[in-house]
Amino acid sequence: MASAPEARGLLDDVAVLDSLVITHDTIVEGVHFLPFDPPASVGWKLVAVNLSDLAAKGASPTGALLSLTISGDGAWEERFLSGVEAACESYTLPLIGGDTVSLPAGAPRVLGMTAIGRAGAHTPERAGGRAGDALWVVGTLGDSAAGLDQLRADAKAASVLVDIYRRPIPQLGAGELIAPHAHAMMDVSDGLLLDAQRMAEASGCVAEIDFDALPLSDGFIESRGGDLEARMYAATAGDDYALLAALPPELDPATLSLPQGTTIARIGRLLAGAPRIAVVSGGFPVELPERLGFEHKSDQHRPLSDPPMADRP
Amino acid sequence: MASAPEARGLLDDVAVLDSLVITHDTIVEGVHFLPFDPPASVGWKLVAVNLSDLAAKGASPTGALLSLTISGDGAWEERFLSGVEAACESYTLPLIGGDTVSLPAGAPRVLGMTAIGRAGAHTPERAGGRAGDALWVVGTLGDSAAGLDQLRADAKAASVLVDIYRRPIPQLGAGELIAPHAHAMMDVSDGLLLDAQRMAEASGCVAEIDFDALPLSDGFIESRGGDLEARMYAATAGDDYALLAALPPELDPATLSLPQGTTIARIGRLLAGAPRIAVVSGGFPVELPERLGFEHKSDQHRPLSDPPMADRP
Repeated sequence: MASAPEARGLLDDVAVLDSLVITHDTIVEGVHFLPFDPPASVGWKLVAVNLSDLAAKGASPTGALLSLTISGDGAWEERFLSGVEAACESYTLPLIGGDTVSLPAGAPRVLGMTAIGRAGAHTPERAGGRAGDALWVVGTLGDSAAGLDQLRADAKAASVLVDIYRRPIPQLGAGELIAPHAHAMMDVSDGLLLDAQRMAEASGCVAEIDFDALPLSDGFIESRGGDLEARMYAATAGDDYALLAALPPELDPATLSLPQGTTIARIGRLLAGAPRIAVVSGGFPVELPERLGFEHKSDQHRPLSDPPMADRP
Repeated sequence: MASAPEARGLLDDVAVLDSLVITHDTIVEGVHFLPFDPPASVGWKLVAVNLSDLAAKGASPTGALLSLTISGDGAWEERFLSGVEAACESYTLPLIGGDTVSLPAGAPRVLGMTAIGRAGAHTPERAGGRAGDALWVVGTLGDSAAGLDQLRADAKAASVLVDIYRRPIPQLGAGELIAPHAHAMMDVSDGLLLDAQRMAEASGCVAEIDFDALPLSDGFIESRGGDLEARMYAATAGDDYALLAALPPELDPATLSLPQGTTIARIGRLLAGAPRIAVVSGGFPVELPERLGFEHKSDQHRPLSDPPMADRP
């Protein structure tokens, strides 16, 4: 199923129809968010995870449809909607429709959003990366997961990392500017290693990642340090809202007038060879962990996810 | 929220972007379908309810995104997907993307679809009906609900009505042909009386419905008769996949070369006056029931629903 050309072989997070880029994400209480998460934050993140998919394709937000379940008296949902609205207003994403349904008593909430963006001059796929391309990450890695860990240790924790966990920022501006030049681009949401592996597989290349070049925020380094363990955490914890782009090696994204404050780091390259990832640090290979990223099991917690349908069991 | 012009004031079931008509429906186990419903039928109906929305706008199916939850070992979902696939193939709706998520153990399934259609020359709204318009229904009413009642009485019941309950047919061909002429059009999914009231409110008219003209199938009449009680049942039970159109009174849809076998009935008219519905039979007014249709409470069963977001509590 789902083998229509518009589906891009399901190797992508989005579908493209005419000049529109369309993506859908669903989040489940107890799987992608937890009862202690503020509902407004859950709403914000549902929008952000969709916008991150659009950003990765260089699309500009055009409209969204919300699938809202109502459980109990609707008080949680009112606060959830305030977060959806805040994100939609922040990123000029009009809410243009959807569906609202009641849940049986006690059922976990399941919330979905279809976001639609207008494609730019070029809509990069996951596939399309070429041996010799430079790999760049837009945004920093691990902040949101580290913020969640702070909250687990202290439910009242307040920090820059907690703020990012609660209100992550999709890289829309940078995505639009980089997409026309990208051979491949996708959002990093499940962990850099897992997502880079997906790009390597889709593009038929080896993705070599230099851990010394990982973009880590000051807040992250202050909280978890910058050693190899911290970098492995940042590259595998997931819940990022960053972009991974395969660019021609001669392109310097600094010349693209990215939005002020954008963090962008050259973290590796694509090489010819059977698809896999390879990590190096200090010039030496780093052994890969068993778990490359967040794999969407219902007994794990990962705040938001974006598995392609092909991942279904 | 959701007040963007593309949302059509949320008085409609669909959003329109460029030349695309976009709709989303979500169904919940225990609310819109029951554990005894065959999973393939649930999948078929999720597609059909979305296609019925496209039919009501005269749009031709272009692509769909599926939001699939996985509960347990995935066996139910495999059968569900076979029904989705059958409907997508039957109506040339390519599945172009979506999301798949795991559910916590024991959680009711929540399944969603965003369907996208290509707009025709005119995309009729719920609003737009004018005093003097003739009201037409495409398709027959009450069949699916009557089929469900047969199944409740005998889980092994087999009949034309049960077939319609399990595999309803969206009125895509007729919708495309009628839409260019319609002042207003919508799908009848929650009961004719409730949906006609919605059209009356959106259009600022009185909707007068002649119960003697209701389109009832032979199977329905055989099962429930054709008296006033049966007609009230057909007009309020919901789970229909019919269309309600407000057409210029001089237009005879028989001249439109509708698909062979299409049932179309002139069931009333729009009149000037404060928005309401009025039912007549044998030339006399019929008292309205308290419940005009299926209102989407989680403790009621109604196989599939399509509430606009504005309906949320």
